[in-house]
Amino acid sequence: MDPLILLDPEAAMAESMEKILELLEEKKYFMARDELLKYNDADIAEMFEELLEEPERLERTIVVYRLLPKAVSVEVFSYLPSDDQLKIVDGITDKELSYIIAELDFDDKIDILEELPANLVDKILEKTPKDERRLINTFLNYPDNCAGSLMTPDYISLEKEWTVERAMQHIKDVGMDAETVYTCYVKDTGRKLIGIVSLSTLVVTDSNRRIMDIMRTDYVCVNVYDDQEDVSEDFKKYGFLAMPVVDKEHRLVGIITVDDILDVIEEENTEDIERMAGIIDWEDSDKEYLDMSVWQHVLNRLPWLLILMVAYVFTGMIITSFEAKLSQIICLVSYMPMLMGTGGNTGSQAATLIIRGLAMDEVETSDALRILWKEVRIGFVIGLILSAFNFARVCWLDGNGPMIALTVCSAMLFIVIFAKILGSMIPLLVKKVKLDPALIANPAISSISDAVALSIYFAMAAVFLGL
Amino acid sequence: MDPLILLDPEAAMAESMEKILELLEEKKYFMARDELLKYNDADIAEMFEELLEEPERLERTIVVYRLLPKAVSVEVFSYLPSDDQLKIVDGITDKELSYIIAELDFDDKIDILEELPANLVDKILEKTPKDERRLINTFLNYPDNCAGSLMTPDYISLEKEWTVERAMQHIKDVGMDAETVYTCYVKDTGRKLIGIVSLSTLVVTDSNRRIMDIMRTDYVCVNVYDDQEDVSEDFKKYGFLAMPVVDKEHRLVGIITVDDILDVIEEENTEDIERMAGIIDWEDSDKEYLDMSVWQHVLNRLPWLLILMVAYVFTGMIITSFEAKLSQIICLVSYMPMLMGTGGNTGSQAATLIIRGLAMDEVETSDALRILWKEVRIGFVIGLILSAFNFARVCWLDGNGPMIALTVCSAMLFIVIFAKILGSMIPLLVKKVKLDPALIANPAISSISDAVALSIYFAMAAVFLGL
Repeated sequence: MDPLILLDPEAAMAESMEKILELLEEKKYFMARDELLKYNDADIAEMFEELLEEPERLERTIVVYRLLPKAVSVEVFSYLPSDDQLKIVDGITDKELSYIIAELDFDDKIDILEELPANLVDKILEKTPKDERRLINTFLNYPDNCAGSLMTPDYISLEKEWTVERAMQHIKDVGMDAETVYTCYVKDTGRKLIGIVSLSTLVVTDSNRRIMDIMRTDYVCVNVYDDQEDVSEDFKKYGFLAMPVVDKEHRLVGIITVDDILDVIEEENTEDIERMAGIIDWEDSDKEYLDMSVWQHVLNRLPWLLILMVAYVFTGMIITSFEAKLSQIICLVSYMPMLMGTGGNTGSQAATLIIRGLAMDEVETSDALRILWKEVRIGFVIGLILSAFNFARVCWLDGNGPMIALTVCSAMLFIVIFAKILGSMIPLLVKKVKLDPALIANPAISSISDAVALSIYFAMAAVFLGL
Repeated sequence: MDPLILLDPEAAMAESMEKILELLEEKKYFMARDELLKYNDADIAEMFEELLEEPERLERTIVVYRLLPKAVSVEVFSYLPSDDQLKIVDGITDKELSYIIAELDFDDKIDILEELPANLVDKILEKTPKDERRLINTFLNYPDNCAGSLMTPDYISLEKEWTVERAMQHIKDVGMDAETVYTCYVKDTGRKLIGIVSLSTLVVTDSNRRIMDIMRTDYVCVNVYDDQEDVSEDFKKYGFLAMPVVDKEHRLVGIITVDDILDVIEEENTEDIERMAGIIDWEDSDKEYLDMSVWQHVLNRLPWLLILMVAYVFTGMIITSFEAKLSQIICLVSYMPMLMGTGGNTGSQAATLIIRGLAMDEVETSDALRILWKEVRIGFVIGLILSAFNFARVCWLDGNGPMIALTVCSAMLFIVIFAKILGSMIPLLVKKVKLDPALIANPAISSISDAVALSIYFAMAAVFLGL
């Protein structure tokens, strides 16, 4: 390998990328390919991602892709995101496509088949052996986001009567992918899972011992219809490299490996983050920002904004009902944005911590009272500090009277405490009724907290200014 | 295993938990222990987490913990979060503690030593063999959040001249943990990493072949001071189960396994989510919500709120300068919260997508123009739709004149477009100057968008209402 690649892989890749772009410009395809082949498959895939971005050089990029050694082309394909895979599918021959699909790991195969148009899938399946075709069809039918959609049927089965020696020979014979070989599974005659043996156990165990004597029966498994979020929780909890997936009769149907879980965790986090910002991904797609159309973006962002429009009608009504009094002391208006904004911000701080805590299993709905008591105290301290700042501001900076300062500051204190209570309790309530706190909490908090902030403010104005 | 445990592990655990609490109440410690031992180590740890929550039953919980078989007690300890580990440390004898520490995997050992008070660490290190003590001290000195703090020195080294048979015998002799045995590392005489061999390759390869002929030299490694976020990016990109860590002379100093990366990913996501909600974790701690004091919570949440206080001074000044005109048409006030709120919400939608896109490497600062063009169009469409709704509301629901409706609606359109531009461009700008967009973007967007929203609104009022 080039020394620069070892020392600073990113700089090396950037340099190569420039070279490749030049070579493509000059149609020196073979040299571009050779430059790519200096890297490992995942890096080559990353470079193709960049090459495939520009529609103008799509054709030339495909030429280089087709010049890759066959084994590399399959690996690179498996690393690409699905929209780039589709771009390549469009550019290669049916024969090349069939080869790639045939060589892909089973789980990658399912992923691309799910994305391809139905007629192309049919064409590919025609050429697939009958047994595999049946298996593919079963896998294609598992709903998205369940354990079944993540698993692969490529696992190693051992018989419980076998010796370790026989088992090792079997592994040599079937010779699988690194990621799926490290745990072997033992089934009874009814295909029910009865135990697991790790490859490391096999390696260090005397070769005459029987599988049934060394297999672990206290394994953890997931159901094929379990939600992928729960599956990733199990991986985090137990620290396994792979987990068996069983159907409701406890028959082993596949395994999930940890490398696919990394993506699931990021996906679930992205979903939570977007939902907390009021973005709903209707298509539940893993499409990247730039690949989504303007309309998709509008569709994902508009609902929350529209719901809040309704809430603002009420906010408007509260102000209107106070209008006559407000025009008497018009300077009160200038503090409205601060009070409402601070209420919203401080409420969403509390909500964020609770929503994340719920997702990480750090807090539970049964902790409600402890959380409430904590947030009331936090709100009190923060409210006092912000009030002190504002007293100074209203009196000295703005030159308003002490009664106005008292109105603003007491409103601030109550608003902050109230927003902390609201922000922490609404997620727990939403969780209690089995909805997703990330989805519901923020719109609910924004709309309620604005209205309450105004009501508190005007109530304080009534108390201190006699309005 | 109990059939219920296999069928519905969570229900079984909840049932056992109730039983254990009763048994603890009655001081039936041995029976409580036996109930726990029905489960695997990770589950037992989860139950201890719950048991350790209540200070009143702490003493009894520790008694049960001390009754666990030694091997189980070590495993359970390694699964517990650090604050629960400390509770146990306080309750057991020094001898028991020394045993646990000695038996822990090296990376878990470092984690707990980092948490223990210095005098206790010294006491433990005294009893540690000299070589290991030196290694522990080196590891304790790696900064938090770097590759060095995640790695373990427990990896398998092979000599390049060895045959596969010799290598397999070596693995049998040293017999390591499952998670660290699956990739073996080949070093030259200067301890420099020259290649890797996976256990699966060893198993399927003819036993007479030499390591140097079958090892892969196109491995990927990380530097010991690399940030943990970059390390987790590499794991996601390459899908490895373990990665070698080298120092700047390219000498192998340890390996990182994927199970530790799952936690890193969640930690980094939590940090991003909290920062986006204006919460700064000063201590960079992984403390859970309920374990943090009121003061820590205040300290983490106050800075952003205070910065915004300053921003609200400007917002207030804009309103004050318009006060006289505002009091002429007081109904304009009732639309202020809606316009400012919508600006903030729609801006943070755009910011969230861009911040997440940057974190996931889906967008780059060089995409700025494409993003800008997309957001302008999205803002235009959303702005138009919201304006249409509001025209109806202002005219019919509120009964205000068409000129006021025109003021509100044109302001809405411009505010939404502007907020989308602001929300998408500020994260890119922050990224460009090498700061963390999650940390800076939202406060900046909130403060600017409020001021601009008001300015646009008053400008429209000047145009349409002649104010």
